[in-house]
Amino acid sequence: MAQKQDDKKVTPRSEDFAAWYNDICLRAELADYSPVRGCIVFRPDGFAIWEALRDELDKRIKKTGARNAYFPLFIPKSFLEKEAQHVEGFAPEVAVVTHGGGKELEEPLIVRPTSETIINHMFSQWIRSHRDLPMMLNQWANVVRWEMRTRMFLRTTEFLWQEGHTAHATREEAERETLTILELYRKFVEEFLAIPLIVGRKSAAERFPGAVETYTIEGLMGDGRALQCGTSHFLGQNFSKSFETRYLDDQNQMQFVWQTSWGVSTRLLGAIVMAHGDDQGLRLPPAVASTQAVIVPIWRKPEEGEKVMAAARAMFDSLEQANIRVRLDTREGLTPGFKFNDWEMRGVPVRIEIGPRDVASGEAVLARRDKSGPDAKSKASMTTIAETVSAMLATIQASLYAQAKTAMIANTRKFDDYNAFKKHMEGEGGGGFADIYWCGNPACETRIREESKATCRAIPLEQDTQPGKCLVCGESATERAFFAKSY
Amino acid sequence: MAQKQDDKKVTPRSEDFAAWYNDICLRAELADYSPVRGCIVFRPDGFAIWEALRDELDKRIKKTGARNAYFPLFIPKSFLEKEAQHVEGFAPEVAVVTHGGGKELEEPLIVRPTSETIINHMFSQWIRSHRDLPMMLNQWANVVRWEMRTRMFLRTTEFLWQEGHTAHATREEAERETLTILELYRKFVEEFLAIPLIVGRKSAAERFPGAVETYTIEGLMGDGRALQCGTSHFLGQNFSKSFETRYLDDQNQMQFVWQTSWGVSTRLLGAIVMAHGDDQGLRLPPAVASTQAVIVPIWRKPEEGEKVMAAARAMFDSLEQANIRVRLDTREGLTPGFKFNDWEMRGVPVRIEIGPRDVASGEAVLARRDKSGPDAKSKASMTTIAETVSAMLATIQASLYAQAKTAMIANTRKFDDYNAFKKHMEGEGGGGFADIYWCGNPACETRIREESKATCRAIPLEQDTQPGKCLVCGESATERAFFAKSY
Repeated sequence: MAQKQDDKKVTPRSEDFAAWYNDICLRAELADYSPVRGCIVFRPDGFAIWEALRDELDKRIKKTGARNAYFPLFIPKSFLEKEAQHVEGFAPEVAVVTHGGGKELEEPLIVRPTSETIINHMFSQWIRSHRDLPMMLNQWANVVRWEMRTRMFLRTTEFLWQEGHTAHATREEAERETLTILELYRKFVEEFLAIPLIVGRKSAAERFPGAVETYTIEGLMGDGRALQCGTSHFLGQNFSKSFETRYLDDQNQMQFVWQTSWGVSTRLLGAIVMAHGDDQGLRLPPAVASTQAVIVPIWRKPEEGEKVMAAARAMFDSLEQANIRVRLDTREGLTPGFKFNDWEMRGVPVRIEIGPRDVASGEAVLARRDKSGPDAKSKASMTTIAETVSAMLATIQASLYAQAKTAMIANTRKFDDYNAFKKHMEGEGGGGFADIYWCGNPACETRIREESKATCRAIPLEQDTQPGKCLVCGESATERAFFAKSY
Repeated sequence: MAQKQDDKKVTPRSEDFAAWYNDICLRAELADYSPVRGCIVFRPDGFAIWEALRDELDKRIKKTGARNAYFPLFIPKSFLEKEAQHVEGFAPEVAVVTHGGGKELEEPLIVRPTSETIINHMFSQWIRSHRDLPMMLNQWANVVRWEMRTRMFLRTTEFLWQEGHTAHATREEAERETLTILELYRKFVEEFLAIPLIVGRKSAAERFPGAVETYTIEGLMGDGRALQCGTSHFLGQNFSKSFETRYLDDQNQMQFVWQTSWGVSTRLLGAIVMAHGDDQGLRLPPAVASTQAVIVPIWRKPEEGEKVMAAARAMFDSLEQANIRVRLDTREGLTPGFKFNDWEMRGVPVRIEIGPRDVASGEAVLARRDKSGPDAKSKASMTTIAETVSAMLATIQASLYAQAKTAMIANTRKFDDYNAFKKHMEGEGGGGFADIYWCGNPACETRIREESKATCRAIPLEQDTQPGKCLVCGESATERAFFAKSY
């Protein structure tokens, strides 16, 4: 497969971001198109990233006290209809099973687009007393939403995610849980995926169908579009009232539980590509890279080969002992240049080159994927290679975050003139976050969307105390909000 | 929830095995019924067992060189129809999506019952040359088979599993892979789940639809019925010919690949319950137990409580430091007796009881879940509690295996008289493995099934060299086979 890499050049990112993105996903072998409309295949290199981030996030979620469970893929159609906003939001995009075992079903089954309804049905049976609360469950699952325009990882008919569902005795406790998870998501995405975020709540128009309040983490991609990276919902008592999820409080009174739900999905793989990638391919944060360092031995004559391979194997062993996820590229019949390009495309953070002269001098060449040009290369003593690479991986993780943060800051603008805002958004490459005063009136939000395609991404949790004037209508506004075009 | 445990006694295992099994699954909170026909909910204590065995098996599979990937949930109906035996086997039990996004689909989509077809479609695009082989992928996924009679874990409409799919250049290599995985499964189930197995190949009637040869690991449950615990299929070129999965060999000739597929599923949870459980509840092999040891502090007066809790916490810390998965039961308002029953029901391998007198003597009481009566209890010094419990967990793992092995041997009988065989199988409690000579004629197999409900579970790979006479027809038979009633 690798040899086919040269068939076609990657579209430059600056030329056509969408085409560049697809090229990278396909050429780095993260994913492939499937014969099923809107569904993709996760190839091993893409799925390995998902496994790395799933395992890390799973650990963090379990530390909050939530436990994993698994609920049915199918949801009776009538369940979806119990919560009015929920059905309005999801009914248009569901896949419906009408036949099973050769017969037409009495009641069609929905392939879950999310599991609030079926989980509430079970909660209503499991929760009896305040002693059963809080009930905190998480599920790793596939979900299906019939999408019209699909894009690899970002918007696919089937995707993988985790969905947390919790039930609490009080409103305060449920609100606290919503924000605890929001902060958990922020730290996870910023620390582990090296993607800087804006954190805030959604406007009413952008809320999850059935939620009282939706909170979000939003990243900024390489083309200036925002990407919602995760959401945490305070559901109030909307679902508990629809499903009669009640408990006996310590005064012997029946009360409806207060609930939350929260999720992140495989769209995070798209975020990694779009936040860090360049024209040479992926750039993986070391924390998620299944290969953190690759050793490429280089030689021409067989007698050189022996020495080079011996040194390469020794380095491999010392890196592996230091818990670095390392690979030794022993593929035959490929030029070093081809191998370099191949590993750059796959986003491996550190490449180690070793030839006969390096063996003689006791040093290897290290190439950092987060930099380019002569700056990217340095020499390192083979005797201390594990320490050097370990430190370099930490540096690269921080550097990718810093680069993305710099890009986000450069691409975040305050506007106090609506025409200037519109002109910017309409212009060539007009993107990024617009940090503006908004009065909160949905009419102003709609006008922005219609005139500039930007939507309200987040209303930051922390605000200046100073009030201002709405960018659109000029009325007084107490809050600033981040608007952007988005995926 | 726990307080409800006393509402109803568990059906004794000897009285009604099926009712006992359901009671245990529900009362140990492994699973619950769902509102969707044939689908169950995996509750946290059940899902934790699945996670433990999934993580261990995943590691072992990856060591063979297979990598994880993820293919779409939906399969175009026409794909299923490409391999004649495959469609015949699966068409009657599929769930069909006919509508998506509010419209009727042009071609209905099947919810995957297994993924050979869609994976072959992708393989046919990824495999070009012998250098792309072997291609070895594994997928952890949910699958759906419309079952008429369902039983928790053993036979549910939706279940979770792993399915490995490999493509090889030669028949020999694919056959070797089939047997490598069979042996991997055997070791995993015997070592990790402590369930002894019969290993062999299936008769033609019991083969996977589309396979040339199916190999199986079969366990014997507490009621004398066999349970198929995993299968490994040699697919030959059946799917590669249907899907044109070809490669250019080193002589520049196009060749069809040789394939395998193999899987184990959440039915293994049912196997654990049925192989090890008793009238007090679950008995979990320590390797899969999310809680391996539980500390129950016992006291009456507050001043005693302080000392007991301090000692309990010290033990907790030393066990945790020794990597033992330990819990401290600090629940209030429950009697020690209630707690003992509760942890026995949940199958925790070791219970540690500590009261004021134990604190004074520096010893705690250990109760082993794999034994009953006075034999189950012993005293252990608190200063060396971690070492004692570690050793005890290893002993329990071995003891559960030995108990199940003894039961299997006692329940395996050789027959050379067909009437004696029939009489045994028809009799009260007539079960277990019948180790018999079979000529291989499907007519004899059918007669056994019709007259005794026993089916051919496995034809052992290792056979006596001595030929014999078929139990049914008396013709010469070169192989012995294991027949049993089964789940």
